[in-house]
Amino acid sequence: MVKTLKEIADFVQGELYGNGSIKIKGVAEIEKAQTGELTFLSNPKYKIFLERTKASAVIIDKKFETPKIPSIRHDNPYYAFCKTLEFFTRKKDYPEGVHPSAILGKNVKMGRRVHIGAYVVIQDKVSMGDRVTILSGSFVGENTVVGEDSFLYPGVTIRENCEIGKKVILHSGAVIGSDGFGYAKEDEIYHKIPQTGRVILEDYVEIGANTTIDRATLGETRIGKGTKIDNLVQIAHNVSIGENSVIAGQAGISGSTKIGKNVTIAGQVGIIGHIKVGDNVIAGAQSGITKSVAPYTVISGYPAREHKKAKKIEACISLLPFYVKKIRELEKKIKNLERKKPQG
Amino acid sequence: MVKTLKEIADFVQGELYGNGSIKIKGVAEIEKAQTGELTFLSNPKYKIFLERTKASAVIIDKKFETPKIPSIRHDNPYYAFCKTLEFFTRKKDYPEGVHPSAILGKNVKMGRRVHIGAYVVIQDKVSMGDRVTILSGSFVGENTVVGEDSFLYPGVTIRENCEIGKKVILHSGAVIGSDGFGYAKEDEIYHKIPQTGRVILEDYVEIGANTTIDRATLGETRIGKGTKIDNLVQIAHNVSIGENSVIAGQAGISGSTKIGKNVTIAGQVGIIGHIKVGDNVIAGAQSGITKSVAPYTVISGYPAREHKKAKKIEACISLLPFYVKKIRELEKKIKNLERKKPQG
Amino acid sequence: MVKTLKEIADFVQGELYGNGSIKIKGVAEIEKAQTGELTFLSNPKYKIFLERTKASAVIIDKKFETPKIPSIRHDNPYYAFCKTLEFFTRKKDYPEGVHPSAILGKNVKMGRRVHIGAYVVIQDKVSMGDRVTILSGSFVGENTVVGEDSFLYPGVTIRENCEIGKKVILHSGAVIGSDGFGYAKEDEIYHKIPQTGRVILEDYVEIGANTTIDRATLGETRIGKGTKIDNLVQIAHNVSIGENSVIAGQAGISGSTKIGKNVTIAGQVGIIGHIKVGDNVIAGAQSGITKSVAPYTVISGYPAREHKKAKKIEACISLLPFYVKKIRELEKKIKNLERKKPQG
Repeated sequence: MVKTLKEIADFVQGELYGNGSIKIKGVAEIEKAQTGELTFLSNPKYKIFLERTKASAVIIDKKFETPKIPSIRHDNPYYAFCKTLEFFTRKKDYPEGVHPSAILGKNVKMGRRVHIGAYVVIQDKVSMGDRVTILSGSFVGENTVVGEDSFLYPGVTIRENCEIGKKVILHSGAVIGSDGFGYAKEDEIYHKIPQTGRVILEDYVEIGANTTIDRATLGETRIGKGTKIDNLVQIAHNVSIGENSVIAGQAGISGSTKIGKNVTIAGQVGIIGHIKVGDNVIAGAQSGITKSVAPYTVISGYPAREHKKAKKIEACISLLPFYVKKIRELEKKIKNLERKKPQG
Repeated sequence: MVKTLKEIADFVQGELYGNGSIKIKGVAEIEKAQTGELTFLSNPKYKIFLERTKASAVIIDKKFETPKIPSIRHDNPYYAFCKTLEFFTRKKDYPEGVHPSAILGKNVKMGRRVHIGAYVVIQDKVSMGDRVTILSGSFVGENTVVGEDSFLYPGVTIRENCEIGKKVILHSGAVIGSDGFGYAKEDEIYHKIPQTGRVILEDYVEIGANTTIDRATLGETRIGKGTKIDNLVQIAHNVSIGENSVIAGQAGISGSTKIGKNVTIAGQVGIIGHIKVGDNVIAGAQSGITKSVAPYTVISGYPAREHKKAKKIEACISLLPFYVKKIRELEKKIKNLERKKPQG
Repeated sequence: MVKTLKEIADFVQGELYGNGSIKIKGVAEIEKAQTGELTFLSNPKYKIFLERTKASAVIIDKKFETPKIPSIRHDNPYYAFCKTLEFFTRKKDYPEGVHPSAILGKNVKMGRRVHIGAYVVIQDKVSMGDRVTILSGSFVGENTVVGEDSFLYPGVTIRENCEIGKKVILHSGAVIGSDGFGYAKEDEIYHKIPQTGRVILEDYVEIGANTTIDRATLGETRIGKGTKIDNLVQIAHNVSIGENSVIAGQAGISGSTKIGKNVTIAGQVGIIGHIKVGDNVIAGAQSGITKSVAPYTVISGYPAREHKKAKKIEACISLLPFYVKKIRELEKKIKNLERKKPQG
């Protein structure tokens, strides 16, 4: 597929600078782009590559200077890049049909143009909307609903009674609806509490590879519309997460915690159970959240504190050896003063 | 299934308060319970919901006040709730038999009423006790033993020569018996050390989704009777864990470390290799355990310290900017005093 | 298999001490070895077991004293142990052939003596070198190349267009080539950025169980020759790692970060995106690396600092309650001095 730069600029609604008639045949990283390719620049860290890129044109942040090569200037260059990349990406077409090796239970309902791959197991009373794609080796448990246009990569497990919305993407190895980690201790022994609830993933949710989302003990574990969860994340039973939140790799959320909408949780963050994290909270990487967090707070550190305070404390910690030495000096000076103090 | 409150009170051996003849048809969370349902209260955080719950009755901690609605008071309300929930939960019945698509090796031994699901692969010389259930797509390697009543959810992998006890539960994506991470460095190159040992999971062990337990280099990696391990936990080669311990999500235990019995390890804890963590130790979330821990110690922090000490240090850290300012002030005051000190 | 101690000493090029004609029939841990078995000792922590081991001989570090039992002294006893263990380990032989249940796409190329297990799915245009082994239930996506002698344990997923080198080992549940976690935010909604790149694992790479390695957005995610990655590690899109590096369990590396060669990353380390970690860096367990690290640096802590500095700071933190008390005392003393200071 080949498009002119002007066509792309119009498509992404950006401002064209330079020769709009040049032909673009693909998209590439700024360090590796070749003639005929379009690249993009939004992170200032990569500005140094702009001088020497071989790309024929660049999508660039409006805030940056106009580069020498033809460019599309944009308020949200990352989004413009995303749209362009989508445009140039040929999506693999999965044909309608159920692979002969797939095993379907009783009373399975299926919409139109559903694709079910090899060795998929679909249990009784599963319902799948139009254009659902379930790739090889995935498992969908009894009575689970998978909404239209949802996509399961190879090796996904969804257990019974779960509800997967529309346009949901589940990556390989993701486990949805595993038992919550609940035991009642009696006589020094842990007794398993039946985990009878379910998991609900709302529309447009994406779940990373090998991420685990436990079913509720009673009721539901719920991931809100448009929320994106990275790889190897642990979501415990009865957690609820609002809309359009983002949770990065290896983060973990303990049981019954409620996360708001538009929340950003960085990698390896840990959040204890039974608390509330308000809307629009941002939690820095590896932070350890031990109590509820008010909306719009930026937090970081272990234990997590309001980010400005955490930075101040961090600065003090960095200078601790200096301050300890200072304390020792002051101590000596005081002793000296005391020795010489007037007898009063 | 419908039972009277009195029948339930008798069953869980709790004290009945109020009308015991009311009919209970199910169990629900305190916020969501409806008429005819029983709820429970053990975490004081949820006390506020008691006033407005629509539940017909509640299982409640003896320490709390008697509520307005009929109640079963109990020393261990969580356990009573667990028993009640078990009582109301209809377990799915997996019929005896081997799915025609399952592949069994040579000399496989099977007890009575074993259920083997679709696309399961069982290698040579595997032995399974009575009532073992192995769901779709799971793999059991050569010469492995699976004890009676053990249950494998879809997509579990157990490698060769492992020993799984009785009433063990393995959740989807769990990998038991993967190679330990062992290399000998020579000439700047890492040479793989054959991992020839095995994994032993004793009776009543439960292993969470996508958790990995590596086989020993030599000898065994052992998880003690009744120990419960959550999702995404890493247990390295030659680790041993005692009985009735609990390890929460995303914790990791490095090679050859020995964990005692009745130990509680919270989420995302990391433990280095070749140390001993004594019986009844409790380790707080995200703590980093860098040396052996005496029995009955509560530890937390990074690096982990005795919890009381960690809390004291944490309190000091929280006030560090204040103390740094204080040091600066004292410095000035001393300078001032020095300027004015008597010429001795 | 039985060998004399002298034969083993010659094989590992170690110095023989004591009776070389004794027969060795296996290798075992120092605590558990029995007569006729060889053990080894390189970690001084286990020296105490040497007195009472029942082993017939020991491979021991040259730096240690000569033990009472016959021994092979070696500069690198761990490596000598590795070679010996390899020698005594009978490797399972996977016969040439494709299991009748395996499903192969169109234009799949296969070298000689390839083994493909039950329920494996190999998509179109996959190419496999000589002696590739792919065990049950694994998935290899369209157009992916798997180099000779590479080995996939049961339940591995490799997505489309990836490149797996020679003698690569992939453990169960590993996911190679899952989508990177990339979204462009526009109008409060996260729009998925197509992840069109690939993953390259160079020769001799080993990837642990349930580890995830995301494909690049554009270009490639690359793991260098001989690099070993443990279980449950997250490698994000566009990361590159040099040769002969080692990454322990549950570590996570964020997008576009470049890791050098001979780097050692301990368990649960987190590394932010878009930075460089130089050659021969060593990062301590659970450290949080927030900026680029110069070659040959040893770092630790959260946030990660040069290790010596981190230790100094850690020592000060450990004594903080003491120093805080000290500040309070000094404050009093100064007040006292001020009260009594001469009226200047």
